[in-house]
Amino acid sequence: MTLDRRRGEALLARAEHGVLGTVHARRGVDAVPVCFAIEDSELVVPIDTVKPKRSSDLQRTKNLDVDGRAVLLCDHWDPLDWSRLWWVRAFMARVELDANSRNRLEERLSEKYPQYRERPFAGLLTFRITKVDGWSAGPTPEG
Amino acid sequence: MTLDRRRGEALLARAEHGVLGTVHARRGVDAVPVCFAIEDSELVVPIDTVKPKRSSDLQRTKNLDVDGRAVLLCDHWDPLDWSRLWWVRAFMARVELDANSRNRLEERLSEKYPQYRERPFAGLLTFRITKVDGWSAGPTPEG
Repeated sequence: MTLDRRRGEALLARAEHGVLGTVHARRGVDAVPVCFAIEDSELVVPIDTVKPKRSSDLQRTKNLDVDGRAVLLCDHWDPLDWSRLWWVRAFMARVELDANSRNRLEERLSEKYPQYRERPFAGLLTFRITKVDGWSAGPTPEG
Repeated sequence: MTLDRRRGEALLARAEHGVLGTVHARRGVDAVPVCFAIEDSELVVPIDTVKPKRSSDLQRTKNLDVDGRAVLLCDHWDPLDWSRLWWVRAFMARVELDANSRNRLEERLSEKYPQYRERPFAGLLTFRITKVDGWSAGPTPEG
């Protein structure tokens, strides 16, 4: 069944991690797993120093500099019981957030991921969600 | 650390599911979780009737009709121990596969997903892998 935006945002808020898709001029699509925090249709993805990076990992940033459209997909996989599958997708535009939003979302990141308390992230990719859609095979977990 | 193609394909072969990214003319990127089978740099994604679909779910097929480039991302998430994280990414081009490859990959799908034994898929998206890259924070599981 189709999930509406309210239900979709509730599931996004509970999701631990997701896949960020950005536009790569030559390859078409890049995709990379990311941590994130969300509140009031604003979403941030940390650029961290906790998970060691190859230099080319920041391709996501280069892509967004050229084309600010992105998608974040969160899904629930269950190999045995496909009646429990669901996924949610946030379509986003890269934007600057004001200092209040940015600070609040940085706090959310530290609450959500204890790893960032000891070793803060190096930067933030900041987005406004333009659309949320999703699908579930059956009832989704309560938010 | 960077994963080479051999290690990357071994991890893809063991992965249960992934996220398929395709190019959407207006939105930039579409992403959707998928089942898949892989062998010898050929990869298939079933269009199934087991997981009930919204009609618009076949957007992935429409996207590929216009732009045959796609990416499949498989990742391992561990909320507590980030030294165990890894991800692998297959960059692909949509191609027609010969009947032998197609049959073999259909068999792989049925071996991998018991769900398809009772209720076969309605179609297949077929790809050739052009590039594999990936990253792991530490040792990856043995294939």
